[in-house]
Amino acid sequence: MRKGILILLLVVGTTAVADEGMWLFNRPPRQLLKQRYNFDPTQPWLDHLQKSSVRFNSGGSGSFLSADGLILTNHHVGLDCLQKISTPAHDYVTTGYHAKTQAEEVKCVDLELNVLMSIEDVTQRVNAAVTPGMSTPDATRARRAVMNTIEKESLDKTGLRSDVVTLYQGAEYHLYRYKKYTDVRLVFAPEVSIAFFGGDPDNFEYPRYDLDVCFFRAYDNGKPAKVDNYLHWSTAGIQDGDLVFVSGHPGGTDRLNTLSHLQFFRDVAYPFTLNLLRRREVLLNTYAERNTENERRAHDQLFGIKNSRKLYVGRIAGLQDPAIVKAKSDAETALRQRVSADPQLSSAYSDAWQMVDNALNTYRPIYPEFRFLEGGVAFNSHLFGIARTLQRLADESQKPNAERLREYRESNLESLKQDLYSEAPIYDDLESLTLADSLSHWLEVVGANDPLVPRVLAGKSPRDRAAELVRSTKLKDVAERKRLGEGGKAVTDASNDPMLQVVRIVDPRARELRKTFEDNVQEPFRQAYAKIANAVFRTSGGETYPDATFTLRLALGTVKGYEENGRSIPWSTNIGGAFAHAAEHKNQPPFDLPKNWLTKKAALNAGTPMNFVSTADIIGGNSGSPVVNRAGEFVGIIFDGNLQSLPWDYQFDDRQGRALAVDSRAIVEALRKVYAATNVVTELSGK
Amino acid sequence: MRKGILILLLVVGTTAVADEGMWLFNRPPRQLLKQRYNFDPTQPWLDHLQKSSVRFNSGGSGSFLSADGLILTNHHVGLDCLQKISTPAHDYVTTGYHAKTQAEEVKCVDLELNVLMSIEDVTQRVNAAVTPGMSTPDATRARRAVMNTIEKESLDKTGLRSDVVTLYQGAEYHLYRYKKYTDVRLVFAPEVSIAFFGGDPDNFEYPRYDLDVCFFRAYDNGKPAKVDNYLHWSTAGIQDGDLVFVSGHPGGTDRLNTLSHLQFFRDVAYPFTLNLLRRREVLLNTYAERNTENERRAHDQLFGIKNSRKLYVGRIAGLQDPAIVKAKSDAETALRQRVSADPQLSSAYSDAWQMVDNALNTYRPIYPEFRFLEGGVAFNSHLFGIARTLQRLADESQKPNAERLREYRESNLESLKQDLYSEAPIYDDLESLTLADSLSHWLEVVGANDPLVPRVLAGKSPRDRAAELVRSTKLKDVAERKRLGEGGKAVTDASNDPMLQVVRIVDPRARELRKTFEDNVQEPFRQAYAKIANAVFRTSGGETYPDATFTLRLALGTVKGYEENGRSIPWSTNIGGAFAHAAEHKNQPPFDLPKNWLTKKAALNAGTPMNFVSTADIIGGNSGSPVVNRAGEFVGIIFDGNLQSLPWDYQFDDRQGRALAVDSRAIVEALRKVYAATNVVTELSGK
Repeated sequence: MRKGILILLLVVGTTAVADEGMWLFNRPPRQLLKQRYNFDPTQPWLDHLQKSSVRFNSGGSGSFLSADGLILTNHHVGLDCLQKISTPAHDYVTTGYHAKTQAEEVKCVDLELNVLMSIEDVTQRVNAAVTPGMSTPDATRARRAVMNTIEKESLDKTGLRSDVVTLYQGAEYHLYRYKKYTDVRLVFAPEVSIAFFGGDPDNFEYPRYDLDVCFFRAYDNGKPAKVDNYLHWSTAGIQDGDLVFVSGHPGGTDRLNTLSHLQFFRDVAYPFTLNLLRRREVLLNTYAERNTENERRAHDQLFGIKNSRKLYVGRIAGLQDPAIVKAKSDAETALRQRVSADPQLSSAYSDAWQMVDNALNTYRPIYPEFRFLEGGVAFNSHLFGIARTLQRLADESQKPNAERLREYRESNLESLKQDLYSEAPIYDDLESLTLADSLSHWLEVVGANDPLVPRVLAGKSPRDRAAELVRSTKLKDVAERKRLGEGGKAVTDASNDPMLQVVRIVDPRARELRKTFEDNVQEPFRQAYAKIANAVFRTSGGETYPDATFTLRLALGTVKGYEENGRSIPWSTNIGGAFAHAAEHKNQPPFDLPKNWLTKKAALNAGTPMNFVSTADIIGGNSGSPVVNRAGEFVGIIFDGNLQSLPWDYQFDDRQGRALAVDSRAIVEALRKVYAATNVVTELSGK
Repeated sequence: MRKGILILLLVVGTTAVADEGMWLFNRPPRQLLKQRYNFDPTQPWLDHLQKSSVRFNSGGSGSFLSADGLILTNHHVGLDCLQKISTPAHDYVTTGYHAKTQAEEVKCVDLELNVLMSIEDVTQRVNAAVTPGMSTPDATRARRAVMNTIEKESLDKTGLRSDVVTLYQGAEYHLYRYKKYTDVRLVFAPEVSIAFFGGDPDNFEYPRYDLDVCFFRAYDNGKPAKVDNYLHWSTAGIQDGDLVFVSGHPGGTDRLNTLSHLQFFRDVAYPFTLNLLRRREVLLNTYAERNTENERRAHDQLFGIKNSRKLYVGRIAGLQDPAIVKAKSDAETALRQRVSADPQLSSAYSDAWQMVDNALNTYRPIYPEFRFLEGGVAFNSHLFGIARTLQRLADESQKPNAERLREYRESNLESLKQDLYSEAPIYDDLESLTLADSLSHWLEVVGANDPLVPRVLAGKSPRDRAAELVRSTKLKDVAERKRLGEGGKAVTDASNDPMLQVVRIVDPRARELRKTFEDNVQEPFRQAYAKIANAVFRTSGGETYPDATFTLRLALGTVKGYEENGRSIPWSTNIGGAFAHAAEHKNQPPFDLPKNWLTKKAALNAGTPMNFVSTADIIGGNSGSPVVNRAGEFVGIIFDGNLQSLPWDYQFDDRQGRALAVDSRAIVEALRKVYAATNVVTELSGK
């Protein structure tokens, strides 16, 4: 599990049931913790956990585990880096890696890590910029301007990465300041076959036996980063029934979306996305099957696609389940009744649901074109993405910071260029394949009579045109990207790189769609959901948390098993179970244990807990989040949810839904006995 | 390659270029053969080839190769039978099979073979039934009535299977009479890993190294069938440049479809179909990956899906190629100009293109619902198919033969029941999986507000409802099917089998859609394409052949290689090349040669030709067709076309397009040296 390839845009306030909640660190569920668990987190406890937590901007979470910047995350989060530093001769994904000394640590090419240093509520300032009666285009512009400005001011003042985060889908705005690490090096990765043991068939399922871990180290000025806050490794580990906490970066949820909005997902957005994912899965499968080098090149992309496909299949199944729809519908009816019953609430909030529906009515007809052009679905190619970023960087840089598209705001340019100038390998064959297929897909949907089609294809078939574009663009060359990116608009405009030319053909319409979306969909959503969130605040009385936004959250839960089809599913698996699971499948992929494990079997303690489950409320993006005990000690690392947790996107339910973690004891056992990684174990032990 | 899972419906007259042509046996291209090859086939030569040819009703072709009814086809055509007779303990697909004596030959469960005995032109009688000025619904009924009647009369008179075949898409109607074999037994099959060596990556590609063969024997009254016509095995084999003939059953082509009709395929039908195929491919891949027994259960279905997916990707790519579209457009313009230029032709035919467009305008909006309900896409389950056939059999049998839906006509009932009462295994888990997914797909497209949805789902999610239906239906039991099928309408209607109940919910709307299709799409197509075909006849002057209809056709071609990206692709590969190809891929699936081959490597003559290419005009359904030389001797067996042949559906082009065949010499070499199948070799040699 990881942050989906498509971050959904909507975030809403919600009240908690059971162990539900992705709580803000500046608004922890003190009442809930006190009442249910008799636990009262101190501010130092919270600060320590917050600053020990790390965001992987490639889409995941992690934590510091030593004073020297040692970081643990999931293998499938580290995969982005592993893939980019691998070559046919040295495939870190398949064989794993172990740096026995700091000198052997391998630098990632474009990874950025963030550590949250402070949160400041800027709701009033943002809302003051949007005055009553403003048209939605004016509101969009005003909101963007104040957000871009706040961030720039903060960056200038503190030197920290500064993001204004939209919470409760528009009811609140908080300024998050992060310490950034861009020199990150690989310390240890196991073989992908044990990290992702069971492959796609076992993904999102439990019982599991995965060593889904990967160690990195953050560097500052070429030296291991010295950090004050890092988690201590629990010597005892957890047991059934223990209270645990998860500190990580859930990517996005949609829990207080209106029913009509969820139906839009079910009937429009999810089918489009699933169709796309299946298409890409089949395409890359056929590519990867050809030979091992192809498999290596496509590995990370294919993993991400299959992971998202399984996730969206689970989500759409939930929305096609009348029981879940009824629960959502009943909750909505109850809220609307509470609003109607109070004249003050009614006059302030009762139009919100209609506002959402109106925005959906605008969104629905433009949805496919928006995804194809502004979302880039028609141009599935790294080189196209680079070309578009370069062209827009040139165009947006001409404007005052307050007027720029959000991703080109001053405060974001450093991170944007970290990506843009990445030395990650780009493979011509794979680029041509995915670009041709996406052009063909676009053509299928919009038809040959779309005015942009002949201009983009230039009289050629999608396959021939894609091959030509990939062959003739110069943007694979990072020096050329820097020349354009640093040269400004005149230099970029002077380039007749064919990929830039395609961008210029498409961009006017793409920007038009984006404007329609921002003015007539996103801004109305913000205004409507701010009302709904406030209606919840004012009628629920309890503690609330906003939908996930790929920002740091605190979840809590109990370690416990569950019942499924009359069977009792245990809270934990163990290392012996991994060997049994492999044997049941004759050690055939994706159920093949690495040679290392097979030869070291006798040395391993079969009873060591390997994976465990808890009721902590997580979602994609939480991958790699540390699991800590009451003492704030590291006891495990989140790596997945079970199938029953997939509808947690819009509805939490812990009757069967569970978060999956790798047990800290299995990590140490494997590091010691399989990998002889004593340097890592020693560092973890704090000695 | 095999007959697609979706037989396209349209067939049109066309004139030939180069070695183009799927010629009728009662209208061979004598002029072409004489002029280009100085070859004049005698009537006995034609009759012998015709009656040596065999149609596999599971979707392919084959030929008799001994007086004792020995039949050769492709492994991937025989796969349908192999799959159905396999069990976890005895997997004929993976391990192959060799019956050393006739007693060891294994009976297929539901295979029907057809041998064409005679052709009679009944165009006048069919056309006489449809009088000028008749409404299209009346024309549909009149045409169906006369066809059903002709077939019934012929069956009663001759005892032979009798099918009226619509040729040139409605310009002609011929009555085909077949000898039927329903007792067919497996004689020899190699391991699937050599039959389909290279798997999906190599499918539709060349050079290839596949032993895609499978031997069966036809039985009559429990004894090997004695046949007068069978092909003699060539001792010399073919060489580069040789003239060859292919006699087989191409499933369907669309070569003289109007441009607008092809655009309908490109923009509506193919995207729908590809979306469906990719969806099913992903679904079954995830199922098959779980364990070897799942892989075994899904093998044939998954092969068929991947095969069709690769084929349709090639077809849509062709129609997205401006060069191909221009060629089709130019040809259409030229034909329409010839028609316009002649007042007589103009008054008779010039409205045909508009008639096609009108029919397409009716078809387009109902297309998805037609596919979901009448096409059964919403109910992807053998058990649903059985239930629908039972219910419709009950309903249609009440009507006079002339009024029945075509597949329930008297003359077809025996074949229909051969299928309906098949003992082929049905797996509950696979049925539930595919039914749940297809219900979910239907729900995605028509939405939860469709009036049929709640009635079919009965308040449950697709997954729960599918599981319930599969668990509770009794139709897995063949005895129950016979009780209903033979019991008549009262008995069927009295059954409250839940799967029959679903059929009854859906059938009124499905029949309504079918009626709309038949009256307002199919019949106008027939009338319009009859005009277009006649316009071609009257303006071309040359010999013509109709689009493919899964009926026996004669193709001709030259054995020769081609140029691709500046490389010269040879006319033939050899056995040594198979070993080299496996070695390049470290003998990893799907490039793994069977153990048998690896151990017998030294004994094999590496220079033996393995696969070869020719310019013969083939398409799906031709799989298993014999390739014969001028003497009518067997020199090879068609098993595929290359990627460049995929657009042959609508446009033949032999600059690079080629038909792929297994060389007769490789078959004998492998039978002798790898499999020690001396009994088969002896029988082939005619001794």
